[in-house]
Amino acid sequence: MEIVSILLMLLVLFVLARIGNRIFEHFGIPGLIGEILVGILIANIVIGGDTLLDFLDIEIPAPGSDHAGTNYSVLYAAAEIGVIFLLFSVGLETKVKELLGVGKSAMLVAILGVVIPFVLGFAYIEFTDSNFHHAMFLAAAMVATSVGITARVIKDMHLMDKLGSKIIIGAAVIDDVLGMIVLAIVKGVAGSDGGMSIMGVVQVIVVACVFVLAAILFAKTVVPKIYAWNERRVKKARDEGKTPSSVNMLALALIVCLFMSWLAESIGLAAIIGAFLAGMMFAEHAWEWKLEQKFETITSVFISFFFIHVGMQVDLGDLGSTAVIISAVAVIVLAVLGKYIGCALGAKIGDKSISKDSCNIIGIGMVPRGEVGIIVASIGLNTIVEGAPALSSSLYAIIVVMAVATTIIAPPILSKLYRKKYPPEYTITANDKI
Amino acid sequence: MEIVSILLMLLVLFVLARIGNRIFEHFGIPGLIGEILVGILIANIVIGGDTLLDFLDIEIPAPGSDHAGTNYSVLYAAAEIGVIFLLFSVGLETKVKELLGVGKSAMLVAILGVVIPFVLGFAYIEFTDSNFHHAMFLAAAMVATSVGITARVIKDMHLMDKLGSKIIIGAAVIDDVLGMIVLAIVKGVAGSDGGMSIMGVVQVIVVACVFVLAAILFAKTVVPKIYAWNERRVKKARDEGKTPSSVNMLALALIVCLFMSWLAESIGLAAIIGAFLAGMMFAEHAWEWKLEQKFETITSVFISFFFIHVGMQVDLGDLGSTAVIISAVAVIVLAVLGKYIGCALGAKIGDKSISKDSCNIIGIGMVPRGEVGIIVASIGLNTIVEGAPALSSSLYAIIVVMAVATTIIAPPILSKLYRKKYPPEYTITANDKI
Repeated sequence: MEIVSILLMLLVLFVLARIGNRIFEHFGIPGLIGEILVGILIANIVIGGDTLLDFLDIEIPAPGSDHAGTNYSVLYAAAEIGVIFLLFSVGLETKVKELLGVGKSAMLVAILGVVIPFVLGFAYIEFTDSNFHHAMFLAAAMVATSVGITARVIKDMHLMDKLGSKIIIGAAVIDDVLGMIVLAIVKGVAGSDGGMSIMGVVQVIVVACVFVLAAILFAKTVVPKIYAWNERRVKKARDEGKTPSSVNMLALALIVCLFMSWLAESIGLAAIIGAFLAGMMFAEHAWEWKLEQKFETITSVFISFFFIHVGMQVDLGDLGSTAVIISAVAVIVLAVLGKYIGCALGAKIGDKSISKDSCNIIGIGMVPRGEVGIIVASIGLNTIVEGAPALSSSLYAIIVVMAVATTIIAPPILSKLYRKKYPPEYTITANDKI
Repeated sequence: MEIVSILLMLLVLFVLARIGNRIFEHFGIPGLIGEILVGILIANIVIGGDTLLDFLDIEIPAPGSDHAGTNYSVLYAAAEIGVIFLLFSVGLETKVKELLGVGKSAMLVAILGVVIPFVLGFAYIEFTDSNFHHAMFLAAAMVATSVGITARVIKDMHLMDKLGSKIIIGAAVIDDVLGMIVLAIVKGVAGSDGGMSIMGVVQVIVVACVFVLAAILFAKTVVPKIYAWNERRVKKARDEGKTPSSVNMLALALIVCLFMSWLAESIGLAAIIGAFLAGMMFAEHAWEWKLEQKFETITSVFISFFFIHVGMQVDLGDLGSTAVIISAVAVIVLAVLGKYIGCALGAKIGDKSISKDSCNIIGIGMVPRGEVGIIVASIGLNTIVEGAPALSSSLYAIIVVMAVATTIIAPPILSKLYRKKYPPEYTITANDKI
């Protein structure tokens, strides 16, 4: 247990992430891409036989391994906590009423955005290597949207209150739930016990839906009652001339955030879904308690480690042969087109009056797969079917590249589409300058 | 690598820490004591053969072991980062000019507060078990003040701007440096190479002094120049009608904090010394960039894990026999008296005009040994002299109890002394209520 080694790791990674961030921001590209690229570079550039990861004593454990070194454990926890806090922040800006308001469109965007990429991914593998389990896992990895990436782009541009943004976030949440259900089914079917029962599939679907709906219902009905009760309590104490005992709202928010993340993870969903729903419970009064700015501060400390960690998991060495490269390009094209067409179509069907620009924003906003695709890939690599992993190592590398590529491709296009639809205010200020 | 297990640990520990904190605060005792007690309880209460630590999958590694489980690694990092951020926050409130203003008194408080406890500790062991190395390590553990504990009491009472507080913080910093020098010497003498050379001792002293003085000099002369240069840069850009590129001050502060902590640790001092000095570099303009409130938010997330970790390391089972208990009581009494007399005397000699109340505050404020004493004890246990640890396991337990006891005894007395000297404002407000 060497604190000096942990401090050096955190220092070097944070400095490099800031440098990557600033360079990309300088060219008008979202800084998170710079942070992911820093992650890829430090894991893959070898100098004198060592990468920077070796120098920093970060040992990425083999897929499925339970053992990790101290530094990797700390980095992994910081990355996971970072994305959990990010999703909580996103939740803080998502009021239940507004989420339910975009419900139909978001639902259609999510469903078509899951079905079309799944079908395309499955068909591609069936036509090329025709391995059923490969096809199922690639299809599942094509499904899940990484709302974290898109959310940060939208937050950086301060456009969280636009209709398109709300639909993207709403759809991404539903999409995450659908993605988890698909993953659970695929994993269940591939499982060594020789197939999943109908009851098992139904159970996974029911658990996911109940969790999300219960959280939304709780935020809509119970939370306002707790708040009203607290108001009465404070008023009563004041009327009696006492100082009302105050609640540390930051501590309460942290506890609810950790609890919901843990709960989501332990019932088989992703922790980030729980974090998002937890944030939503505080959304109505977040400004009052300065929760948004406090969580923004905390998130800014952690989130760079998440993006570095996403990049770090890419091993460029797996992408040597021409066949693999061609396959990777094909998968990337299918992943982008499938999500774009599915989601834009869903938005148009959901709301005929929606503009073409908004459809484009929604379609592109849903493209990034980020960490979710990578998680699916690593589960595939660790699921053993008839003595072999359900996913080949080259297909694993392809999925990771697809997840990273969609994550890198989408944000700049999304930024441009947003800029086109909502010209930045500072241009006006500059022209109107007295 | 199970995020669900990490989340559960963070959730349970944070909730218990908050409960402990609120219960103690309710009775007017600083909440951190509740957090330390929670740590002691969860490590020592056994239900059905398991402690809560086992349930949470936290395995405290054997002293000197390099291997730790994922959950302990994460907890350890959170605790260390917490105390580093706390000391950075303390540094943010310590302006260089003011620190140098209390220089003479603080220096005398520190020196007498080191010499008297060291002599008492050494003499006690020489007269009882007369083992030279035992005596040296106990004496070294009696020396170092845990500025973190006292700083939090002072911060919680919003009395950081008082003269007594400044002297305590200033003296605790010098004291930490002196403590580290003493530790380095003791460790060097006990080292298996059979004694430390005079050159080695001189080197340790020189490194510590140069580091601290260089940081203070940097904060006093270079930092204002950087600030003035930045002001000119921003003004020039504005005059030319451009938007000046802004620096993310939180990111910069984090980088400097991590860098100084790492640097201090790697040259053999404690990370917290570096963090404190880093904070001091930003003190002059901290309010302008809202650094204080941002770091307070971040610190509040981490710091509970530090106090829980301090408590967790106490194994009550080591304290079975009457002889050990008597010895523990004697050591506690000597630790409290030695520090109190040394520091109060130092304050009086340093400034004849100082009030008796302020001398008492300074004497008691320097009593807590906290984590520093525990660190010294664990180093003693891991230093092998002539085939045996330099510290016996019962003496190790005694030192830990002494560190915890001084930490528990001092804050309530300190609170009372402060309340006596500075009656809280809300009493006045309540009486004057219209």
